[in-house]
Amino acid sequence: MMQIDILTLFPEMFEGVFHSSILKKAREANTFQYETINFREYTTNKHNKVDDYPYGGGAGMVLSPQPLFDAVEDLQKKRHTTPRVVLMCPQGERYTQTKAEELAKEDHLIFICGHYEGYDERIRTHLATDEISIGDYVLTGGELGAMVVIDSVVRLLPDALGNEESAQKDSFSTGLLEHPHYTRPREFRGLSVPDVILSGNHQKIEEWRRKESLKRTYQRRPDLLESYPLTAEEKKWLEWDKNKD
Amino acid sequence: MMQIDILTLFPEMFEGVFHSSILKKAREANTFQYETINFREYTTNKHNKVDDYPYGGGAGMVLSPQPLFDAVEDLQKKRHTTPRVVLMCPQGERYTQTKAEELAKEDHLIFICGHYEGYDERIRTHLATDEISIGDYVLTGGELGAMVVIDSVVRLLPDALGNEESAQKDSFSTGLLEHPHYTRPREFRGLSVPDVILSGNHQKIEEWRRKESLKRTYQRRPDLLESYPLTAEEKKWLEWDKNKD
Repeated sequence: MMQIDILTLFPEMFEGVFHSSILKKAREANTFQYETINFREYTTNKHNKVDDYPYGGGAGMVLSPQPLFDAVEDLQKKRHTTPRVVLMCPQGERYTQTKAEELAKEDHLIFICGHYEGYDERIRTHLATDEISIGDYVLTGGELGAMVVIDSVVRLLPDALGNEESAQKDSFSTGLLEHPHYTRPREFRGLSVPDVILSGNHQKIEEWRRKESLKRTYQRRPDLLESYPLTAEEKKWLEWDKNKD
Repeated sequence: MMQIDILTLFPEMFEGVFHSSILKKAREANTFQYETINFREYTTNKHNKVDDYPYGGGAGMVLSPQPLFDAVEDLQKKRHTTPRVVLMCPQGERYTQTKAEELAKEDHLIFICGHYEGYDERIRTHLATDEISIGDYVLTGGELGAMVVIDSVVRLLPDALGNEESAQKDSFSTGLLEHPHYTRPREFRGLSVPDVILSGNHQKIEEWRRKESLKRTYQRRPDLLESYPLTAEEKKWLEWDKNKD
């Protein structure tokens, strides 16, 4: 069972997410367990302050090293492990599915969720093993990022997803965006399902799906095609499509 | 006040996040209000099914158009608005701070959070105004993505952040990753704060921070430098740093 510990000033933020849907089922199936730890409890100063003014001046407060170092050490002793310590921050490496697969192999993950201006640099250099950013946008804190990483990691653990869902082909696993899906009714408010999908000809359906997948990727995320090894057939489709537009 | 409506099968997932920290304060200050709507309530079939098998075969279930179209129309009537309808999905445009700034100008946002294999294509083409992906990783559903978008949008609304935090320079607003921060103590477990930061020479501190910011961006996110207009001085620093490494 994977152990996930989350150091945060807002433990209550995690409740809704961990008590619903697939994460709830995965916890109940002992796929993982988690604990949220308010690292304010580890402060040794009189007013339980977790942050302080930045040396050298500037706006905002900086998270102090002491409470976070002590909290991580305490967890290591308690769990008898050498965990990955993941710092959620905009300066981190950009999170990808490959990183999710890497983290899913671990037994114990600690997440550090910051608020305010940032972390004292010594937390980065001597406490964190990984610094992760979930994307190029600014959030009010690290909690949502941690939830995103945990959700994407837990769903990769054995038996975390039901049979139905585990059978699915993931987006990004093929390197292309997914093709369009259609379900009943055949016509909805004058909008019809393409004939080929209803044809019953599985070879044609498969070809249509591959073409649509490629076309959508080309139109929306051409950057993904840079690392996708196009077959000769796919190259031809793409050329045809470019000329058509 | 911004109105945010969220169509989801798991309304309870949102509670922790909307009832903590800055989003809680922003709600209390009437910066925005939100409602979660379980779109299962809009189904017109006997068993309240929101999904169905995909036409043309394949694994997984596809979200049907009817409940989502009806739910969005109902909200439009109720709010007397023409809202942006944001579909959370891996096939969407990659979310950025620029998009957050764009959405922050709206009065009414509707988020559609999917689960299962995907959406019937007619939801994309005739109901959604925007399709957003928060990053290249697979999540168990659209809820966490919606929370991420909402968090990043709400913090941009007037008065959403306290004075202290609004004064901060955001990551990504300069186009570079942030420089290191340090706070007390000067020495922590043998790790010292760099002398320059303690020097009191503000010009030197500023120069050190700009250099570190540039260096970190070059090392971790060289892709960001492609769209960053380097000054002659910065080019020189970067050359020097490359030769040193």
